[in-house]
Order: sequence, then C-alpha cells, then structure tokens
Amino acid sequence: MFYLIGLGLYDENDITLRGLQTVKKCQRIYLEAYTSILLVNKDRLESLYEKEITLADREMVESNSDEILKDADTCDVAMLVVGDPMGATTHADLVLRARELNIPVRMIHNASIMNGIGASGLQLYKFGQTVSLVYFEGNYRPQSFYDRIKENVSLGLHTLVLLDIKVKEQSWENLARGRKIYEPPRYMSASLAAQQMIEVEEDRKEDICSADSLAVAIGRLGSDDQVIVSGTLGEIAEYDVGPPLHSVLLVGKEVHDMELDYLKMFAINKNNFERVAKLYLQR
Amino acid sequence: MFYLIGLGLYDENDITLRGLQTVKKCQRIYLEAYTSILLVNKDRLESLYEKEITLADREMVESNSDEILKDADTCDVAMLVVGDPMGATTHADLVLRARELNIPVRMIHNASIMNGIGASGLQLYKFGQTVSLVYFEGNYRPQSFYDRIKENVSLGLHTLVLLDIKVKEQSWENLARGRKIYEPPRYMSASLAAQQMIEVEEDRKEDICSADSLAVAIGRLGSDDQVIVSGTLGEIAEYDVGPPLHSVLLVGKEVHDMELDYLKMFAINKNNFERVAKLYLQR
Repeated sequence: MFYLIGLGLYDENDITLRGLQTVKKCQRIYLEAYTSILLVNKDRLESLYEKEITLADREMVESNSDEILKDADTCDVAMLVVGDPMGATTHADLVLRARELNIPVRMIHNASIMNGIGASGLQLYKFGQTVSLVYFEGNYRPQSFYDRIKENVSLGLHTLVLLDIKVKEQSWENLARGRKIYEPPRYMSASLAAQQMIEVEEDRKEDICSADSLAVAIGRLGSDDQVIVSGTLGEIAEYDVGPPLHSVLLVGKEVHDMELDYLKMFAINKNNFERVAKLYLQR
Repeated sequence: MFYLIGLGLYDENDITLRGLQTVKKCQRIYLEAYTSILLVNKDRLESLYEKEITLADREMVESNSDEILKDADTCDVAMLVVGDPMGATTHADLVLRARELNIPVRMIHNASIMNGIGASGLQLYKFGQTVSLVYFEGNYRPQSFYDRIKENVSLGLHTLVLLDIKVKEQSWENLARGRKIYEPPRYMSASLAAQQMIEVEEDRKEDICSADSLAVAIGRLGSDDQVIVSGTLGEIAEYDVGPPLHSVLLVGKEVHDMELDYLKMFAINKNNFERVAKLYLQR
C-alpha cells in the first residue's frame, strides 16, 4: 500500500493517531520537503516513529516517482506531507502514477493552511479562490494574483493569499554551469506580501487591495508561538509576525459583524481597526 | 485554559497526538454534537481518553456557554469538535465569550471537509465559496444556493455543497406543546442533493447545475469505507454512496485536464464521463 499521510501544521505532535500507527508499519518513509516546510527537524519525526526518513525533494518526487513507489504493491510505503496530503498538485500526480502501477493508495488527512485559517474567525465558507504571491524581482512583477483577488472581491468574498517559498533554488550561474549548489531557503513575509499587494494596487487603482483594505497576517499557524494580527494592509506592510511560515488573508466586503468582532481581538491598532471596520459594514 | 480540539473526519484515531495529550489533562470534556457527527460512538472516545465526555447539544453550546467555560481560567476544559474546531460559527462565539471572561483559549486543528475534499483530485485553490443545501419540504424550496453556485460558476470555480443535517429537531406539534421529544436524525444524501440541484436548474434554466453538469459525490470522507464517485449530476441523483455523511462537489468550467484524469478514476460510467469531460475542456 502507498500511504499519503498529512503531518498537520506545525510539529511531530500534529500527526494523527491513525497516521502514526500507519507510519510505524511502513517499510519506507519519505518526507516531501519542497511544497511546504515543517517547523521542526526531521530527526524529531524519526525518533517519534523509530524509523528513518528519506527527504524527497522536487526532483525526486517529480522525476523519480517510480523509485518512491517501488514494491509498494507488496510492502507499505509512506509519503509524509506537511499539512494535508492533497494540498499540492504533485501528490495527485503520485496517486495517478500509483494507480497505473496497480498500487493501492490510502490518504490520511490532516489540518492544512486551507482550513486552519478558520483560526482568524473569518468564516471558511465565505472564502473565494486561493491565490499565490511570488517574490517580485526586477521586472518580474506578475499581477495575475490581482485579477483573481478582484474576482473574489467582486463577490464580497475573503481571499487566502499563499506566500512564495524558495527552497533548493539555484542561481542562474549555478544552473547554467550545472552545479547543484542551492541558494539559502527564503520564505516570503506577510509584510512583504502586503507591500507587493499595495504596489500592484497603486498601479491598477481598482480598490482591490489598497493600504486601507482590511487584512490578516498569520505566522506559524498551529504552533505554540502562532501570531495572528489584523489591520489594514498598510499596517501589515510594516508589521513583523516573526519567523516563517506566513500567510495573508484579505477580508471580503461582505464580512459579517461577528467576524469583525473576532478579528478585532487581533487588531494591530484597535482604533484604526474600528474606523476601517465601520466602513466595511456600511458598504 | 479552554481548548477547542478538532477530532478530524472519521473516528477516534483521527485525533492528533497533541489533541490526545491535551484531552488527557483536561478536567472537563465536552463533545459538540450538532453541527456535524462523528462516525463512531462516544464510548470509543471515552475509552481512548480514559475520561468521561459530556455531549453538548445546540441548546447547551448556544445558551449555556458559561457552564461549559466555568472555571476554565483555573482548570483545563476541552470542547471536542468533529473536523476542525473553526468549521462552525458557534465555536467563534464560544471563543469570544471566553475572551470576555479572560479565559485563555487554544485551538488544536485537524482535517475537515473543507480541506479533505482535496481527496477528489479537484484543486483546493480553485474552489469558490461553499454553499449549504437544506432539505426541500413542501413549499420551502429555497434557491439562494443556486445564486451562490452561479457566482462560482461565472469564475470557472468548483463548489463544495454541504448537505443538511437534522439532529435533535422537534416536530411542530412537540415544539408547540413544549415536549422535548426529538425526531430521528436525518442526513441528506448526495443523490437527494443532486435531485434538488437539478430541480432548481429546471426552474431557473441558467445552465449552472443541470443533469449534465460534472460533479463528485463523497460518502464518509476519511473512513475505511469512504466512497468517492464522479459523474454527471443526473448520474449522482441515482447513485447511492451508502451511509452518511455525504458531500457533493460541483466541478467548475475551468477544470484542468489533470483534475479530470484524477476524477475519471472515480467515474460511475467511464464512457459518459469522458464524453462530458471533453465538453468541459472545449469551453
């Protein structure tokens, strides 16, 4: 059997009992380590499972899936995924490949950013499509995320903005020379995300994500030092929620007063929050 | 401390290690038992936790929250919630009330229907707002869900349709006479949901959710006998995915061919699925 096992949001204790029981019986265990990051080291997992874990990078998962799936029709193999197993397209590919090889697949679900953001008090059923924000670099400042957010805004819906993660990236020079030397990992901060959103707003001027739009910044969701703050994008652009990972939620115009009451608990500046929240309720 | 602990999708083994460690140290434990249902009996949880659990019905959570929160500033109290703790508005209310009483709150997240539907192969970031479908009865056949789905459809997005749960409902007669006699619980089936969606389409005729629209029916997500089938709403209207709980996903027009490849694994009728899928890709 090939198991896709969600590890949840934070550390080794976020696996489910079913997940742990399953890992313990597997002959080979991989940890997918590029679509998200776990906030603890692999050895913490290994000592809990009493098993060795192989890190699976993008190259391995996308080009060497048959190695991962090898003999999974006769033995038990696990792929551990931060959050829920089906958060990234890559894992759907793995399942399809397993099916072609007649390998049975079982998924063990867990919390992920997609549902954990309920912690903000914004109602999950009122979120529109999720958008991703990449690092702006030089002339590379893609605005397509703005059009997606605009669609959500037009329906009054909230938006989850996922922030860029650069893991195992090569510089152009090292790539050109075929040298497997990787840049240090980078994780986009909520404040940089807010700055980029405001930059595009200032170009487009359609009042989609301005410095006065209500938003939420989340750091290390589900961890002991989780940070949630609410305020305008302008405030968030100048606020540090600490170490990675971060996410940003843009509040939709159809926000309910109970959602605003909840968000107010996290306000960077209560007075300013109340001022802006009032404008939202009047729309 | 007041803990809101997600139990995950299916049975007692879906709690996280962190959740279990926390429950075990709590002095009082409540199980929220009306916004969703767990697919196992309470005694399975009690024997795992080695603790007694109090069932908290709607009346208790909404009218008696202070009883639940009593002394939670000096002892540890847990509210167990099927899925993730922040799936229902009710729990945000409890957190706000706890804050008013200066009781610290901690949430322990878990998988819920909102992210578990990734198991279908439909990409979570391409879902629009979530809609709820209630039992049509007599002249009570509300169509507002249709307008919400239409908004998603206009953007090419998928829709999660949550299905009605009737727990601890009283008949008009018992309600009028003040008799606390409850009707047997009812859980809307995916096939009834599809029938109701088609009924409204036949009235509105805007090609939002017709008998030829692609959809997915899910039964008992995350359980050992989970069922996922894909096909047209017409096919799903006649298909039984077994015991509750069920959910329905309506496939958006911007569906990717890899999503369709994945869905095809679950097709009720492969030929018909391929015929309809081709129409989606041509749009």
